[in-house]
Amino acid sequence: MESGKWISEVANGYGTTLEITEHLFSKKSAFQQIDIYQTRKLGKLLMLDGIIQLTSFDEFAYHEMMAHLPFYTHPCPEKILVIGGGDGGVLRELAKHPELKELHICEIDADVIAACRQFLPETACGFDDPRVAIHIGDGSKFVREHKNEFDIIIVDSTDPGGPGEPLFGEEFYLDLKAALRPGGVIASQSESPYLLPDIVLRLNTLTNKLFKFADYAIMQVPTYPTGQIGMCIASDARDVHPQASEVPEELQKTLRYYSPLARCGSFGHPHFVSELLKKAKQ
Amino acid sequence: MESGKWISEVANGYGTTLEITEHLFSKKSAFQQIDIYQTRKLGKLLMLDGIIQLTSFDEFAYHEMMAHLPFYTHPCPEKILVIGGGDGGVLRELAKHPELKELHICEIDADVIAACRQFLPETACGFDDPRVAIHIGDGSKFVREHKNEFDIIIVDSTDPGGPGEPLFGEEFYLDLKAALRPGGVIASQSESPYLLPDIVLRLNTLTNKLFKFADYAIMQVPTYPTGQIGMCIASDARDVHPQASEVPEELQKTLRYYSPLARCGSFGHPHFVSELLKKAKQ
Repeated sequence: MESGKWISEVANGYGTTLEITEHLFSKKSAFQQIDIYQTRKLGKLLMLDGIIQLTSFDEFAYHEMMAHLPFYTHPCPEKILVIGGGDGGVLRELAKHPELKELHICEIDADVIAACRQFLPETACGFDDPRVAIHIGDGSKFVREHKNEFDIIIVDSTDPGGPGEPLFGEEFYLDLKAALRPGGVIASQSESPYLLPDIVLRLNTLTNKLFKFADYAIMQVPTYPTGQIGMCIASDARDVHPQASEVPEELQKTLRYYSPLARCGSFGHPHFVSELLKKAKQ
Repeated sequence: MESGKWISEVANGYGTTLEITEHLFSKKSAFQQIDIYQTRKLGKLLMLDGIIQLTSFDEFAYHEMMAHLPFYTHPCPEKILVIGGGDGGVLRELAKHPELKELHICEIDADVIAACRQFLPETACGFDDPRVAIHIGDGSKFVREHKNEFDIIIVDSTDPGGPGEPLFGEEFYLDLKAALRPGGVIASQSESPYLLPDIVLRLNTLTNKLFKFADYAIMQVPTYPTGQIGMCIASDARDVHPQASEVPEELQKTLRYYSPLARCGSFGHPHFVSELLKKAKQ
C-alpha cells in the first residue's frame, strides 16, 4: 500500500478507527480470521475476526493490568494459568516476577501464537520464558480437567460470540473456582461498561455469586472501542483489595501503567458503574 | 441521507468514528465551523472545526466532572464563572446546586449557544436557570477585566489551535488566579495524556507553578479520541482533595458519573501519568 487507509472496529454506532499502511499477515485459522497490520503511528495491530486485540502503542495498559493486578492480590503465587492470551503479552508481564515457578497458558489457536511470535515479538517474547508451558486447546476443557492446581488463573479472552464464547458462562466460572488452589485468585477480561453493560452485569453477578470476594477493575486502553475495558477479579479466600501490594522499585521502572495508585484508580468507578455493580451483588 | 455514513475525528493515526444519519445544522461562524449531526445510536453530535465536542450519549461524563469536581472542592461557593462551555452542559450541572447565587458564562461564539439551544436542548437547558448571566466575548479578556470576583472558574475550552488557543497560556492562568476570590478554585479542560502528553505536562507545570495546590483528574468519555480527557484543578488556598465532599442523596440520584468514588478514581492514574505529573511538579 502506498498511502495509508483506515480500518475500524465499530459497535453500537461508534468505535475506533486506525490508519494502516501494510497488511502484514492474514490467515483464516480453524477458529478465526487472524490479521496483523502495520499502522501509521501505533506500531503493529492485531485483529481477530475484525476485533482489535492490541496495538504496540497501548497494549502495555491491558497486559500490565491483567497480569499485575491479580498477581498483587495474592501474597505468594507460584503457579499461574493464563487462558487465551495467545499474543503472549500477559505472560511477558508475569515473567517479570521471579517468585513465579510455573506459567501455564492454554490458547485454543496455535496460529495466533505463531503469527504473534513472527510479527509481534515485543509482545510474544512472553513465550520465551523457560517457566512457560504452552497447552494448545479449549481453555474451558483445560480448566475442567485441572482441579486444585493454580494460585491465579487469568482469562485473557476475546469477546463473547467467537471462540471465546464458552469463557463467559457459569459452568466455566465454577470450573475456574475448582481449578484454584486454596487462597487462589481469578481475573477475567470483562468488557466495557459503556459498550456492553449487560455482559459486565452478567459476569459480575456470576463472580459475586460464586466467590466470597469479587470486584471489577477498569483499565484505559485508547484503541479499544470506548477507550477502556474491564476485568473481574475474585477469590474465595482473600479480599481482592489487599492492604499491602507494593511494587519493588526495579520492577516499577519496567511498568508504564500498573502501580499501587493505578490499581486504586481502576476501582474508582463512575456512578453508573457503581450502580451496575450494586445490582450484581443483589 | 437515506442510510448512515461515518464521520471521524482522528489524530496521531487513530481516533473515533461515529455513524451519522442526518446533518442537522452547519454554519461557519465568525470563529469556527459549527456542525450538529443526528447519529444512529448516540443521539446528537456537536462538532466544532471537525472536533467532537459532545454526543447525547456520553456528555454526562464530561459535564458532571467539569462541574461537580470543582464544586465539591470548595466548601461554600456562591459565584461561578464558566469560560467557553457554549453547549450549556456545565451550567446544567452547576444549576443543580441551590447554594450557588450567580452563574456567569463567557462564551466567545454566540452562534454555538444559539445552535445548541435549538438542537441540543437537553444540554443547553443549563442556560435557562435564572441565576445564569451570559457574556459573549473572549474569555481571556473577560477574566483579565474581573479581579477578585469568583469562587470557582471552570475553563470548558476547545483544544489549542482554534479560538480556544489563548486559554492555554501562562498569562491566562495568571489572570484566572487574579479573578478568584480568596479561597477560590479553578478547573480547566486539560486534554488526554495518551494523545497530548506535552500539553498535559505544560498545563500541569503551569498550575503547579502558579498555585499552592494543583492536581489533574481524568474522566472517561468514550466518544473523545482515546476515550478520556483530563482536567487541571488548582487553588491557592485549599487542598484540591478535601476531606469531606459528600453528595446529597437526592442530587446523587440525578448523576450518572460523578460521585465521591468517581472523584477518587479520577486521580488514580496509570503510572505514565503519575510520572508526567511528577515532572510537572519539578
